[in-house]
Amino acid sequence: MAVNLIIPPESEIHSVDGVEIGIAEAGIRKAHHKDLTVFRLAQDSTVAGVFTRNRFRAAPVQVCESHLASGNAIRALVINTGNANAGTGEAGMRVAQETCRAAASLLGLQPEQVLPFSTGVILEPLPLDRLLAALPAAIDNLAAANWLPAAHSIMTTDTQPKVSSRRLQAGGHTVTITGISKGAGMIRPNMATMLGFMATDAAIPAELLADMTRRIADRSFNRITVDGDTSTNDSFIIVATGRSGLSVDSTSSPHYQALFDALAASALELAQKIVRDAEGATKFMTIQVDEAGSAEEALQVAYAVAHSPLVKTAFYASDPNLGRILAAIGYAGVADLDVSGVSLWLGDVLVASRGQRHPDYREEDGQRVMKEAEIPMRIALGRGQVSETVYTCDFSHDYVSINADYRS
Amino acid sequence: MAVNLIIPPESEIHSVDGVEIGIAEAGIRKAHHKDLTVFRLAQDSTVAGVFTRNRFRAAPVQVCESHLASGNAIRALVINTGNANAGTGEAGMRVAQETCRAAASLLGLQPEQVLPFSTGVILEPLPLDRLLAALPAAIDNLAAANWLPAAHSIMTTDTQPKVSSRRLQAGGHTVTITGISKGAGMIRPNMATMLGFMATDAAIPAELLADMTRRIADRSFNRITVDGDTSTNDSFIIVATGRSGLSVDSTSSPHYQALFDALAASALELAQKIVRDAEGATKFMTIQVDEAGSAEEALQVAYAVAHSPLVKTAFYASDPNLGRILAAIGYAGVADLDVSGVSLWLGDVLVASRGQRHPDYREEDGQRVMKEAEIPMRIALGRGQVSETVYTCDFSHDYVSINADYRS
Repeated sequence: MAVNLIIPPESEIHSVDGVEIGIAEAGIRKAHHKDLTVFRLAQDSTVAGVFTRNRFRAAPVQVCESHLASGNAIRALVINTGNANAGTGEAGMRVAQETCRAAASLLGLQPEQVLPFSTGVILEPLPLDRLLAALPAAIDNLAAANWLPAAHSIMTTDTQPKVSSRRLQAGGHTVTITGISKGAGMIRPNMATMLGFMATDAAIPAELLADMTRRIADRSFNRITVDGDTSTNDSFIIVATGRSGLSVDSTSSPHYQALFDALAASALELAQKIVRDAEGATKFMTIQVDEAGSAEEALQVAYAVAHSPLVKTAFYASDPNLGRILAAIGYAGVADLDVSGVSLWLGDVLVASRGQRHPDYREEDGQRVMKEAEIPMRIALGRGQVSETVYTCDFSHDYVSINADYRS
Repeated sequence: MAVNLIIPPESEIHSVDGVEIGIAEAGIRKAHHKDLTVFRLAQDSTVAGVFTRNRFRAAPVQVCESHLASGNAIRALVINTGNANAGTGEAGMRVAQETCRAAASLLGLQPEQVLPFSTGVILEPLPLDRLLAALPAAIDNLAAANWLPAAHSIMTTDTQPKVSSRRLQAGGHTVTITGISKGAGMIRPNMATMLGFMATDAAIPAELLADMTRRIADRSFNRITVDGDTSTNDSFIIVATGRSGLSVDSTSSPHYQALFDALAASALELAQKIVRDAEGATKFMTIQVDEAGSAEEALQVAYAVAHSPLVKTAFYASDPNLGRILAAIGYAGVADLDVSGVSLWLGDVLVASRGQRHPDYREEDGQRVMKEAEIPMRIALGRGQVSETVYTCDFSHDYVSINADYRS
């Protein structure tokens, strides 16, 4: 089902020195299902995160933000699937705090050194007893090589695990970056996605890491959408263990840019993998908006096109009914848009220019691009110099089937 | 397919004195298909219209606005299906103008006294020759009793004709209000819908009628959504022929309010019929947002819920996965929303209060409401006194099928 989603062979998934991962079956929602994951992070690791802007922020998101703000060194992450612990009020907050307390006790840490993450159904109580009962098994399972099993264990409606791993040489050191993500529906991250975890063995001070994490999210997880539904639990975390020997102290450090680019490339890969494995997706679409007057209006147009059910179903059918794209551009909310400046390309095919069908455009040419699994679309607004790119997928029968049946 | 859409018996569809309607087969897109409709309006009729705010306004919309602004007495409407004449540039403008010119010539009018309307595929040239060839037949067919055939002839992906007809007694006169609408996809009117035509035989001065039309659109066609896609061709027209003898000159006229309410009720009925016949719809949902701080935020929340593919597919499946509604409320864009003030009812079932699942809520109760064809939902925000209501439908396999195949 997934669109060109590549799972690297195990030999190319590099462990990150200073990170161990353990997995267990808690049976949160379904029995005999690996749904609990624990990360243990080496001393002196720095951790940064960005979280959903949904006003119904789940309890674990609130606890994460509080623990990150407390200044305590984060040393563990606890992730469950099967239940989002969102819309659960004070009781939900207690569940998230008890999870941290129990994990801290088993690992010899303070509760504030643990970050909790939950994903699954909203508005239902999370069975704390099952989670706590499985924690010792997850901790017994801790190992550096568990990235791929972890990518499996954080899946919900995902059909494929999502892993990115790369190495770079910098300052005489081999630096590793490995990460995992999950998510297939309720995807329009607004800070980050539900969920992304990356680690590197470079050393990065906490404040710089926080800044990098925000900027990386803005060009990766914050540029994807499946259905326009921003989740209550979006969380994206970067861990820097420092074990490689490379240390990057500021944006002017000699290897800062190379490290930033490598982290950003991994994050973009993980974000795009969410779109590639989106519920029901058969096509991966890149929507680039050029010549905008501002980033805001470029994104308004890109998201209007990316969210239009009419555009998405037309791409599913490879039906070059491309007036639907112009309609979406027109209602995107750019109040003073002069449509006579608008051009539209599908791949290398110029569909519309000066706000109307280009005289040389032939539907066969549009359809040829639409039949591909990877569809680049470019919209030029004729208003300025700003470009933005958003990644999305088509909208198929299977999206409806999956979401009509998700809980049953 | 349509959800409780009632087609009145012919005996209850009242002609409006001063309005004649003629229909013909132009074969704009498909041969042997009634796709051309002409309205002839009696002398001294007043006409008002509201039109799409999509920046890609179709050529006929632009011509309508220009002719209405010209101050000439509007005496005819020409409506074609099969092609929207949108995204067609200068050539499209000429087609719309030539249509008015030809109709005016046949009817003994000036071109500026004719309003053109088009609906169908965007970004393709409208075959003017076929339209002009069929105009004489449509005019030969002019008759007062043609409202139901006209409701048929303006359909595109609609499965049912949409007619509303009512009478009121005022000032010793029997006043008739009859209207038709069309639309099933690309429906999130932003001024009006694609397309609505109403007529009354009351007399209403042009300026007052324009004001009433705007206010009526804001509580009817501007409160429905199927897929969030605002069309390039939305147009809503009210004609007042004055033939009944009742004259309403200002908002303080004795029968103003009764006439306004009756017109508004007809418009709401026609707007709701579009939702009832929406592409693939199996359920009709009324989303009422109470206790908002402003109309704007009430509508933000109502539309976020109404557009969420996850909410719409859950209702299709009668799956009480109602956390999806809270998630949509949370991402609607009310930046300072305190979720602990939010309550949610499905029918008479209190699902959530204080931002979390209500302790007495049982899924069977939620599901009982979801299994109905008519689903009232109420959201209280706990922020103020403002209420707004939006009407929408669920999201089914058939929506995808219809929109993946629309042109084939």
